[in-house]
Amino acid sequence: MNLDELIQRLRDFADARDWEPYHTPKNLVMALSGEVGELTALFQWLTPEQSAAAMGDPELRAEVLDEIADVTLYLARLADMLGVDLLDAANAKIDRNELRFPTPGR
Amino acid sequence: MNLDELIQRLRDFADARDWEPYHTPKNLVMALSGEVGELTALFQWLTPEQSAAAMGDPELRAEVLDEIADVTLYLARLADMLGVDLLDAANAKIDRNELRFPTPGR
Amino acid sequence: MNLDELIQRLRDFADARDWEPYHTPKNLVMALSGEVGELTALFQWLTPEQSAAAMGDPELRAEVLDEIADVTLYLARLADMLGVDLLDAANAKIDRNELRFPTPGR
Amino acid sequence: MNLDELIQRLRDFADARDWEPYHTPKNLVMALSGEVGELTALFQWLTPEQSAAAMGDPELRAEVLDEIADVTLYLARLADMLGVDLLDAANAKIDRNELRFPTPGR
Repeated sequence: MNLDELIQRLRDFADARDWEPYHTPKNLVMALSGEVGELTALFQWLTPEQSAAAMGDPELRAEVLDEIADVTLYLARLADMLGVDLLDAANAKIDRNELRFPTPGR
Repeated sequence: MNLDELIQRLRDFADARDWEPYHTPKNLVMALSGEVGELTALFQWLTPEQSAAAMGDPELRAEVLDEIADVTLYLARLADMLGVDLLDAANAKIDRNELRFPTPGR
Repeated sequence: MNLDELIQRLRDFADARDWEPYHTPKNLVMALSGEVGELTALFQWLTPEQSAAAMGDPELRAEVLDEIADVTLYLARLADMLGVDLLDAANAKIDRNELRFPTPGR
Repeated sequence: MNLDELIQRLRDFADARDWEPYHTPKNLVMALSGEVGELTALFQWLTPEQSAAAMGDPELRAEVLDEIADVTLYLARLADMLGVDLLDAANAKIDRNELRFPTPGR
């Protein structure tokens, strides 16, 4: 399974349920934001150190996997509806970040 | 460029700048949330219809590409620091969603 | 009940449960963000017009009241822990906005 | 200045600029979420301890005041457009929380 295959699966999923009319970029950005809020809630009372050990707790691990999956699904669907190639966009941004944040001694 | 290569590039980027100590899951979730906030702001005053045409405006298009890239970078980095395979997690979530939302007539 | 009384009630509530150590600004910002995510989710699939009529639906109304209350509680608690007077800060920001966005013909 | 006066000032501000058509609950929730994202970004790389000392740094203090003000403004405006009394809603939520989280020995 690669990202393109995931995006195709999301298209088929929305098609089969006639959900496309709801999947405007505006709505999908809100859905993405709502899921990031749920992911945030899992970490809000943890110390940074506890957050680094979160996946060692089976119950918390399952919740993190569930929420990070939802974030990924809405981000992939949003990108598809916008016609954005996420990997290209992300890669181009690292190129820009390398200019903004040069490494010492280079 | 696939997702694994992007994740490796993010590792090298953080390594070269000694940023790993900052990249706890707690901090990365906040960074992800901040970037989703910036993406949200681009769509907040648009109608759903305008949001669907957003990429036709060159200036807005560049901003959307920049923010959606930042969201992708922090999500990929967070997944890496948590040891989560995003595509597996997302795919497993669609499996669960197919049970939650059965299609009519099947 | 005014805002100061609400803030005092939140102090007493946290005191009685020994929750103060968890109420760092970093954690409270995350909690605020998580609750805004839940509020966002209530509106994500609504059209702008439907969102304007949301309070006419008793079930949705109860959910909106619950989530907007949580947002208010965490914002008030965050302000208290930061030593910020929310109304003064908000008022000063409107002063600045009046300069940034002058009204036509005045 | 109390909360009702702030809300009235926001009404006048929007009126004078003909911004009411943009101020649907859906749009205002997005604006609130975007501002919470900006507030989150100020704290993302700080430790919890550093976050507790944030207001001692004059530059960071000014940024926090600016962002927390924006959050307050959009929350107050959203409540007004929904017809919600924020203080009543928050107070009623503390009543419910007292039942959910009883204090030890009482």
